[in-house]
Amino acid sequence: MTSDAPRPEARAPRGFADRRARDLAAERAILASVSAVYERYGFEALDTGAMEYADALGKFLPDADRPNEGVFALQDDDEQWMALRYDLTAPLARFVAQNWETLPKPFRRYAFGSVWRNEKPGPGRFREFTQCDADTVGSARPEADAEIIAMAAEGFQAAGLARGQAVLKINNRKLLDGLLAEQGVDERRKLTVLRAIDKYDRLGWDGVVHLLGKGRLDESGDFTKGAELSAGAIAAVEGFLNSASSPDLTRAQVIDALGRLSLGAAGQEALAELAAIDTALRALGVGDDLAKVDPTVVRGLEYYTGPVFEAELLLQTVDDKGQAVRFGSVGGGGRYDDLVARFTGQPVPATGFSFGVSRLAAALRAAGRDLGRQARGPVVVIAFDAAHMAEYYAAAGELRAAGIAAEVYLGSSGMKAQMKYADRRLAPAAIMLGGDEIAAGTVTVKDLDLGRELAAGVSDNSQWRAERPGQATIPRGELVSFVRRIVGGGDEG
Amino acid sequence: MTSDAPRPEARAPRGFADRRARDLAAERAILASVSAVYERYGFEALDTGAMEYADALGKFLPDADRPNEGVFALQDDDEQWMALRYDLTAPLARFVAQNWETLPKPFRRYAFGSVWRNEKPGPGRFREFTQCDADTVGSARPEADAEIIAMAAEGFQAAGLARGQAVLKINNRKLLDGLLAEQGVDERRKLTVLRAIDKYDRLGWDGVVHLLGKGRLDESGDFTKGAELSAGAIAAVEGFLNSASSPDLTRAQVIDALGRLSLGAAGQEALAELAAIDTALRALGVGDDLAKVDPTVVRGLEYYTGPVFEAELLLQTVDDKGQAVRFGSVGGGGRYDDLVARFTGQPVPATGFSFGVSRLAAALRAAGRDLGRQARGPVVVIAFDAAHMAEYYAAAGELRAAGIAAEVYLGSSGMKAQMKYADRRLAPAAIMLGGDEIAAGTVTVKDLDLGRELAAGVSDNSQWRAERPGQATIPRGELVSFVRRIVGGGDEG
Repeated sequence: MTSDAPRPEARAPRGFADRRARDLAAERAILASVSAVYERYGFEALDTGAMEYADALGKFLPDADRPNEGVFALQDDDEQWMALRYDLTAPLARFVAQNWETLPKPFRRYAFGSVWRNEKPGPGRFREFTQCDADTVGSARPEADAEIIAMAAEGFQAAGLARGQAVLKINNRKLLDGLLAEQGVDERRKLTVLRAIDKYDRLGWDGVVHLLGKGRLDESGDFTKGAELSAGAIAAVEGFLNSASSPDLTRAQVIDALGRLSLGAAGQEALAELAAIDTALRALGVGDDLAKVDPTVVRGLEYYTGPVFEAELLLQTVDDKGQAVRFGSVGGGGRYDDLVARFTGQPVPATGFSFGVSRLAAALRAAGRDLGRQARGPVVVIAFDAAHMAEYYAAAGELRAAGIAAEVYLGSSGMKAQMKYADRRLAPAAIMLGGDEIAAGTVTVKDLDLGRELAAGVSDNSQWRAERPGQATIPRGELVSFVRRIVGGGDEG
Repeated sequence: MTSDAPRPEARAPRGFADRRARDLAAERAILASVSAVYERYGFEALDTGAMEYADALGKFLPDADRPNEGVFALQDDDEQWMALRYDLTAPLARFVAQNWETLPKPFRRYAFGSVWRNEKPGPGRFREFTQCDADTVGSARPEADAEIIAMAAEGFQAAGLARGQAVLKINNRKLLDGLLAEQGVDERRKLTVLRAIDKYDRLGWDGVVHLLGKGRLDESGDFTKGAELSAGAIAAVEGFLNSASSPDLTRAQVIDALGRLSLGAAGQEALAELAAIDTALRALGVGDDLAKVDPTVVRGLEYYTGPVFEAELLLQTVDDKGQAVRFGSVGGGGRYDDLVARFTGQPVPATGFSFGVSRLAAALRAAGRDLGRQARGPVVVIAFDAAHMAEYYAAAGELRAAGIAAEVYLGSSGMKAQMKYADRRLAPAAIMLGGDEIAAGTVTVKDLDLGRELAAGVSDNSQWRAERPGQATIPRGELVSFVRRIVGGGDEG
């Protein structure tokens, strides 16, 4: 703090965002509504710490040269490596393994909070972001998967999406396992096949077919080596991916179509699970338009062992330049029966879903769904004269007591700058209590919402003028009711 | 994940807590009510990332051997040191310095979230905990301090404390500065004096007087060297600390008493600030019982430059063994006019307050204020037969649609274990739809809240029996209204 110490530059680390009221209000609204859905389904809140031991996160101990590979890791006093959690599932697995004996089983929990990934940040790509998960641990029943899917579908609606603006896509890892085993494809090539299918959305079948065969040369001239499947195996994969070619097919119809393929024992098991999930989804009232069976879904994470889920936004959105934006995946999950076994050696069946909350908030914002409305500023009481602060505070206090956010201006600037401040705060109104008003027992209220509406050309001047007076000097006793009219009436943004 | 890999032990890093529904509900209730107070006063939400550059946190660059001194620090790809924030004030100063030009001024923000301290954890002492702050940046006016104090007082009430269970104590750093300067005490000894006064609560004047003089030998035989003040200086400090000797004195009376001391120019400035704060507090309706002037308050942080605030719980609490516990400080703050200047070179006046949310939640819990009530479990629908899952889901769905948390049991255990599960989840009721009931169009509801009340001997059996039927088989169409009676009636925990 000495004056000759070098001054640090004021900047946040790359990929860590500062978020103001509007963005936060949107995210908090999503978290509150999705949490309410989870709680209605009987999931209890759990909050684990931000740090886990690196071995518990499922990473190998980072070596001294690259301790931060993918996660933010550091060594504790006792030399043990810790890292910030990169999702909410690994800490859950650790918690369940640690407390298995005393937990009610199945254990159903939801959690939300920041997760951290030490990856290259970019536009819309952060190193800290918010997830909101629900998981059922200790139930192998397909109904547990179905319930997770039902909650995700209901969560989207609770977050403000209309029916048809999001869809849950369901697949089962074991379908492709069975199909590839039938075609004699070994484990090594299976990964290449999965990667190829993961690009189906982007490249379509014409691109994927090359990646299943010799390989693919992309526009930039880069060559990606293919899985070198036989023509027969490629045809089998094509048939598999085409089972859900029409978006109008019901889940049962897709399951029927898959049933006509040669999927081996693993595939038959997967089909039985999907059929049971479908039955439960119907019992839960989840229509075929909200959750579909889609064999093109891969989900990157290795730990899924059967059913996988992916949430896709169908909502049409545009970016700052008016370009159409496809947001794609805003959440996903699946069944992972081996994660707790990492600690205990005993497999524990588990299934869950994770909302990408920050991403969903961004998508809703881009789609013009303004969840941040309540971020409007407070009513500002203009401070003319230090001698009258008590009157200003009394006015602000009355408004607050009526549930209306209000503040007395506390800077040192004059009237004009104070009005500008009120406008910048998106204050719905400015309250003026000059010496004349105080002497006369009146107060002047300026309707700033109206001013902004007029300035933006949103409203018809004459209509607004008729309904709302703009600026008026009224008896002091009518302050709250008058401002309430503005706050109520202006709440259309 | 290979079976021969060593299995990690399932444990969380020391000082990082797993928190279940009940604790979380209490903390979230506090955050929601305190945030609502802040918003009503016109403070906008801000969320900065968990990480800051180490230089921005005000620490010197950690050296390679001890990068974690006090904070959790690590090096980014580009070799810059980053650390998890240890409070919410340093990130605010960084944010304000970074965005000063575009912010409305004064800038008023509130924030809540985890902060991390790399210190030795202990009972009730965590390395990650929750704070909830409000700060006004860009106003030097004492009214800004008063408002922060008023919000803290209102925040305690919003969090569930009755009047008289918490008090805000106000002091001004410059009072003691002036007093010591008048007594010719140099800067070096001033720190020792501050440390001595900080122990006033614990040691009383009899202990402090030794620390101001030669030094103090404690019970364990350790000797703490004193400030070696002159007898006159010690008497002056005693007079200063005694200015608020009676808890019944008003703020104005304490300020008057202080005014009779020899406090020099700095002290006179401090008194004028305190008087202005008092005036504003009265205008804000903050009584002398809610906020007191108390010269014994020190506050450890070096960055405070004038007024300092400390929140003390007066609430009587007992620990698990029935021993009285004094929770003491559950929050604090003050004016810090130099923090933004670290970045910009330009001093920016700022004042704020921070609630120790985890600590306040613990105190409220210890005091029997059960903010975690809503953590009660869902209604559990017993699953007798896989063939009837649709009926079970229909029942759970109806309850959820009525806003009652409900779940279908999804484990693989029999009836008895399912009832035990429901009890462990603190389910208010269990729903039984056996084959007979389904055939007859009925449903059996077991009132588990009642069972728990009876088991705990809380309620008079006959009275409860008269009001609530315990277990009843009712027409299926009456399920929701029947359960609602239980959920409503049992909500007395």
